[in-house]
Formats: sequence, C-alpha cells, structure tokens
Amino acid sequence: MKPSLPQGTRDFSADIIRKRQYILTTIEKVFGLYGFEPLETPAIENLETLMGKYGEEGDKLIFKILNNGLDNPAKRGAVQKGLEAILEGKNDKSITERALRYDLTIPFARYLAMNFGQLTMPFKRYQMQNVWRADRPQKGRYREFVQCDADIAGTNSLLSDAELALIYLQVFEKLQIGVEIKLNSRKILAALAEVCGGASHLTAITVAIDKLDKVGIHKVKEELSASQLTAAQIDTIENYLQISGSNAEKLIKISGIIGSVSAGREGIAELSSLLQCLKEAAGSAVDDTITIDFTLARGLNYYTGSIFEVKAKQVVMGSIGGGGRYDDLTGLFGLPSIPGVGISFGVDRIYDVMNELRLFPGELLQSTVAIFLNLGEKEAAVAFKEMQKLRTNGISCELYYENAKMEKQFRYATKKNIPHAVIIGSTEVAEKTCIIKDLKRGQQQTIPLDQLLPFFAGARD
Amino acid sequence: MKPSLPQGTRDFSADIIRKRQYILTTIEKVFGLYGFEPLETPAIENLETLMGKYGEEGDKLIFKILNNGLDNPAKRGAVQKGLEAILEGKNDKSITERALRYDLTIPFARYLAMNFGQLTMPFKRYQMQNVWRADRPQKGRYREFVQCDADIAGTNSLLSDAELALIYLQVFEKLQIGVEIKLNSRKILAALAEVCGGASHLTAITVAIDKLDKVGIHKVKEELSASQLTAAQIDTIENYLQISGSNAEKLIKISGIIGSVSAGREGIAELSSLLQCLKEAAGSAVDDTITIDFTLARGLNYYTGSIFEVKAKQVVMGSIGGGGRYDDLTGLFGLPSIPGVGISFGVDRIYDVMNELRLFPGELLQSTVAIFLNLGEKEAAVAFKEMQKLRTNGISCELYYENAKMEKQFRYATKKNIPHAVIIGSTEVAEKTCIIKDLKRGQQQTIPLDQLLPFFAGARD
Repeated sequence: MKPSLPQGTRDFSADIIRKRQYILTTIEKVFGLYGFEPLETPAIENLETLMGKYGEEGDKLIFKILNNGLDNPAKRGAVQKGLEAILEGKNDKSITERALRYDLTIPFARYLAMNFGQLTMPFKRYQMQNVWRADRPQKGRYREFVQCDADIAGTNSLLSDAELALIYLQVFEKLQIGVEIKLNSRKILAALAEVCGGASHLTAITVAIDKLDKVGIHKVKEELSASQLTAAQIDTIENYLQISGSNAEKLIKISGIIGSVSAGREGIAELSSLLQCLKEAAGSAVDDTITIDFTLARGLNYYTGSIFEVKAKQVVMGSIGGGGRYDDLTGLFGLPSIPGVGISFGVDRIYDVMNELRLFPGELLQSTVAIFLNLGEKEAAVAFKEMQKLRTNGISCELYYENAKMEKQFRYATKKNIPHAVIIGSTEVAEKTCIIKDLKRGQQQTIPLDQLLPFFAGARD
Repeated sequence: MKPSLPQGTRDFSADIIRKRQYILTTIEKVFGLYGFEPLETPAIENLETLMGKYGEEGDKLIFKILNNGLDNPAKRGAVQKGLEAILEGKNDKSITERALRYDLTIPFARYLAMNFGQLTMPFKRYQMQNVWRADRPQKGRYREFVQCDADIAGTNSLLSDAELALIYLQVFEKLQIGVEIKLNSRKILAALAEVCGGASHLTAITVAIDKLDKVGIHKVKEELSASQLTAAQIDTIENYLQISGSNAEKLIKISGIIGSVSAGREGIAELSSLLQCLKEAAGSAVDDTITIDFTLARGLNYYTGSIFEVKAKQVVMGSIGGGGRYDDLTGLFGLPSIPGVGISFGVDRIYDVMNELRLFPGELLQSTVAIFLNLGEKEAAVAFKEMQKLRTNGISCELYYENAKMEKQFRYATKKNIPHAVIIGSTEVAEKTCIIKDLKRGQQQTIPLDQLLPFFAGARD
C-alpha cells in the first residue's frame, strides 16, 4: 500500500518547523511583553459548542467526529434514526457529538463562560493552535492550519485597542517585515449607514465595501444599487470611499460626511484618540505604518468598534493580520456583557512573505554543531565518550553510527548542514588527539582531545 | 446554554502551560544535543493509514471523522449503503475517510515511506504532538494527550540504542527527577521461549511476564500453565524472573538459563556491550540508574531488540518513559527492511511527578515584571508612554486599563503574581518621577522617570 496524506494537510519537516517556530516564538515573546498569558483548549469540542456560531456555510465546514461504538445493539434504534437525520443534512447526537476546533475565538468564549468566576479580569490571553476546516483545498488554503490570536476581554478601554496595534508594530519590526496597519471603526461604518438611509443598510454597505479591493468601485456601486440604495446615497458612499490624504486630513474629511450623527462623532473621536495614543507611545513609526482606511470593513463578522488589518508592503498578498473590537463575546454561552478586542496573525502568509523576502536568519538551518566520524569500533568508542562530554556541556553533536566509507559519512554531514567534522582514527586514539575539519572552508587542524570542549564552547548557542 | 468540555479533554491555563512547556522544552533541547530533528504530521490521517495498525481494540478507539456533504443527493445511494455498514461496526469510505492521529509511530512510518528518497538516513526525528483515543476517561487517562517520541530509523547500530538511554539520563537529570532506567532485550525473551518449548510460546510468555508487577508470580505461573507450558518450563521461567544482583551478576546468571541458544547469547552480548558503552560515556551515573531487569517485557508491541522503561524513584507511579528496538518499521507502507529504535516520554506523568516533588522552578509562575497603575486619563497617558519604552527593551509590563480603585488594581497585580507596581500620579507627572513599589516586600521608592528602564533592565529575562 502506497500511503498518502489527506487533502489539504501537510507534514512539516525540520527546516519548515524551525522557520515556523521562529515566527511563533517571536510573536509569543511580544505577547508576553504586553502581559498576555497562554491558553490552550482541546482540539475536540462538543458539537453544540460550535454549531450555529460560524453561519450556515461555516456549519458545513466543521469536521464532525463519528461517535464510537455505533454497532452497539442496545443503541441500534437511536443510531438508525440518527443516520436518517444525517441523510437529511442534519446532525444527530447518536451519530456525532463532537467536532474539531474551527477557530480559536469560540473556544476562548466557551472557556471564559466556564471559568469566569476564577479568572482575573480583564483577561488577556493568547492562543496559538491548529484549527480544522473542510474547505475545498487550494493554493495557500489548508484544512489544518495554525491560528494565532490575542484577545483582551472585559474592558472597553481604548488603551487595549492601542496595545494590540503596538503588538503588530513590534512583532513585524522584529520579523523585519515592512507593514501597513490599516485602521477603521465599525462605528464609522454604522454612521455611514445611518446617513445613507438607516441602520437596515449596514450589512449591505459593509458587504459591498468589503469587496472594493477585489471588484472595484463600479461593481460596488452596482451592488449597492441592487440593495435598494438611492443614487444620492450611493454618491455619499462613493465620496466616503474616496477620502484620501494624511490620517489627520482623513479625520477632517470624514467629519463632513458622518459628523452629523452621534455614532459618527463617537467613531471619529475614538480613532483620533487611538492614533494620538499610538503616536505618543511609538513615535514616528506610527506615521510610516498606521493608516486610517475608511474602505476597511472586515467582512461579515461580529466587530462593533475598532477594526484592524495588516498588509505586507513589499509583497502582493492578502492581509497577514486582522482583528477588531466586539461588544459581546460570551453572551452565546450565558455570560452577557463581556466586551473585548482581539487580533490574529496569519502565520502561513507571514511564512510566505518571509521566505519570499529571505528574512529568516541563516542559523535556523543549522542542526548539529559537529559530526564525529566513525572509523571503526575502537575509534568510535573513544569518539562516543568525547562526544558525550560535549553534549553534557550543551554542544550538539552526532557520531555516524556505522563504519561506512568516509565519503558517505561526509555526505551525511553535508545533507544535515553540519559545519564541523571531528575525526578520531587509530593514530589520534594513540596520541590522544583529534582532527577537526571545517566543512564549509575545508580547512582542518589537529588538537589534543582535552581541547575539544573549549574548541566548541564558542559554538554553543 | 451552559457550555462544557467533552469528556476526557482539558483546557490548559497559563500556569499549567508554562510547567508543561518547561518539560517539553527541556526534552526538546536534549533531543537537539543528540542531533534529532523535529517532525510534525497532521492531526488528520487517512483512515486506511491507521486502521489495522493497533490491533482490534485499537481500531475501535480511533476517532473517525464524518465526511462532509453526506446530504448530497448524488451520493445518496452510496451513503445509505455506508450507513448500513456502520451499523455492522464496519467503516465505509462514503461515510468516513479520515481519522485522528492515534499515536506518533504510525504517522512517522507513513512519513518515512512517503519521503524515503529525500531523507538523510539514518533519520533521527523527534515529534511532540497530541494524539486522540476514544478510551473510557479515568483519572490520569485522557482522550487528548501529548506524546513525545524520538526515533532513529535506518541503522542496527547499538550506538543508537545507547544514545536513547543517554537521552533519558540527561533529560531526567535536567528535570531533577531521580529515575531507574530498566533495560532488557526481546532477544533474551525469545531465547527464554526457545528453551521453554519453542517460539510458539513467545507471546504467551511475554504477555504473562508483562503482568508480573500487577498480579504477582503465582498468577503469572497460573497463566503460563493455562497456556500449556509444562511444570519444568514454568520452573525455568520462575528462575529467570528471580535473577537478582548487580548488572554484571545478572548477566552471568542469565547465561546459565539461556546461554545454550544463539538468540540468548546474542541478546546477552548486546546488553553487555550496551552497558559497557553507557558506562564509558556517562560514568558512575549509569550504576545508580541503569538496571538490567529481565522481568521487563513491554507488552504486546513490535519490539525485537533492546527494550527500555523508566520509573521515577521517589514516587509510586507507572512508567514515565519507555521504548525499544524494532526490525521493520515501514514494511506496512511498502518500504521493507528499515530497522529502528525509539523512546517516548510520558509527559502527563512527568508533570505529576514534578508537581508532587515540587521540582518546577518558581520563576515559571511569574508573568509580567511590572504593573503601571492607572490614576486618571492624563497620568495613564504618561504611564503608557513610559511602559512602551520598557516593552521595546524586552521588559514585560501592563497598564491597568481603567482608572479603578487602587485596591482593585493591586488585587489584579497580586492575582497575576506581578512583583512590581509603578505609580505615576499628578505629582509624579509634574516632577517627572514615579514610585516603584515592591509588591512582595511592600517597600517603595521614588525615582526619576528616566531611571525606569535601568531599574528594570536587571529584571529582564
């Protein structure tokens, strides 16, 4: 049998893991600097925890787990009925009670609701775990992929929104990715809907604006027209979308369109205050990277306040991060009135950007510091002993297991990108020395065995 | 709706994650010192990759994933038939094609078989990932838990067996857990079967011996008798099980029982050579920790050579590690003749041992270095700016988001185990100073704002 992987899943080999780990560790350290604490939830959730939280389309993309013991005769009746439900596209507890995590937000909300009494509020958590979606696999879209979220639950303070923007700044600075962090507010979109005929248009306007990047202004206008907006209203929206200039100029211009309604004034005041706070904390870095962008809508999700999106400047690619503020995270689980704000990092895309721009540090690729060649049983025994001294002192090394041809042993070292070979033959055993060969430069030198540890101590990480 | 977790699964909060991470990072670093490279495989495998690899009981404990789109009318006939198969306890591709990873060994074998041409052999990989089993949950047994394996594939060299024992030594020394590493060889058990009536008894003898710890020698003898072994054969096995003394003495005594058959002589020679190698590499640590134990059998698995098991000395608990050598890892996937040797660490049990013996370093519990109190909008703005300087210099800190009562803010700091508070009130803003309060000792001092960074630079990790 020739084995294969399920569609949309991946094995990760060492080089890829080290690069991914570099990204995740960098993000994790910055989360730590801001006082966020890690949380891990199980891959398996009760199906009822997940169903109905991601829209009708989302429900279909949840991977459900088959109950075990379906051949139990005692359950035959229930199972039979359950199977009929399945044929109708329904779920049934007798067939499936559990499902795979679909995102990190709903499990976080579930955790908050279950543990609220014990938690220190406001609660700042980050979570870096896999999620699973039965999407049709395609380039860059997988059925198992890592999500990386940070959320602050339990405060309305704009300082928390500001901190998340600062986290974006600091992470991408550390990763050396030039980014544009786009900023808008759902309150401003709500105000726009209000001046364009009322709150009932909010969804239509948000959905249409969200497509601007992909379809252009004409299609957006067509769509708005199809949603029963008048020509005058569509003109207002077009004016809104064409606002340009510096952040300060944009804030003045937007006031002319939505300053007449209170949600508009509130949204503008919040954005101004957020920008001010960011400028004082991060200085000129803010001017280069943080842009108010009124065309930012963030699709059909649950945001109610600030919204963020991050784009890499030097690479053409979708957003590499996004997030926003929401009013009610845990109401669905019986714990009302917990506001929050969160961001996420698109790790797969960040990986692609860093690969394309060659931003990964070269030393990530080195595995072992030294390979001890195997020149026979007796020589290998001496090598093994010396090698162990290095290992107990934190220096990584390997002995080639078999007394194979030197060529083969060197090839192993080259393939594993090992920079040094240590050669102990019969002469070296007798003289208590060893030859160290620099495999990059080809130079070699003979040193006493008791100088091996000091030699490599400099190479320790 | 009151949310809950599926049976046998766990949320991990920050303190637990940090402790678990401490264990995993320690192990991972040691793996690295020995030239092992990380591998990650997907949580989801094709069902056919897993089925039939874990015995009949294992097959039942695999979590299968329901195919999506079962209500597709075009598939109705196939699905109906598949559902009938499910009622009979069979799997059917039209209902389930995928399953959750059950262990790390089969995915590793699948990976080797799929990528053999590209891999550097011998291939040394470690893997630390979750697995899922539909076991009945009970104390200490979960349906989702982490496994932590290291394997060397593609060599028969005993040096690789020796390295795995050294990894155990080094990891548990770093974790400060006193351990006994038990050593035996399947070749010795095979030889015992041979002198007790032939290879056909091997399984019966292995299974019986494996229960010795739990049921005692009388039950073992009863079971052997039920397996058609003669009284003389059972006497031989009892003599075998009673071998005691130092490692050297045991090797002499065993020779009297199984030295007459070639598998016996081979097994003894290998154990001697392994011990010799370990002694030269690790010195006296070996005498205290590595014990030949002929009662070690390692259940019904696929081992063919050395077998290992690790027990914590100061805590009564099952093994916290185990492994062994196998002849043919990947034959099931069409790649024959790849021998290997591997070990695994029981992370959940190691965690319990370390908790019981209080071996986790205290600093694991600290999250943030300093909390900036919030004494009003203007003061908070100054605090926010100062805080950001610390963060960009690698010092973790938080500002309390709201201008709440001091008491509440201090309670937040205490709950999060934050050691310092920085207080900037209107006086401090005017004088460009701040008060630093040591929350453990209760002392406080006033320093100029520009001395904040140097003050905390010492607290950086």
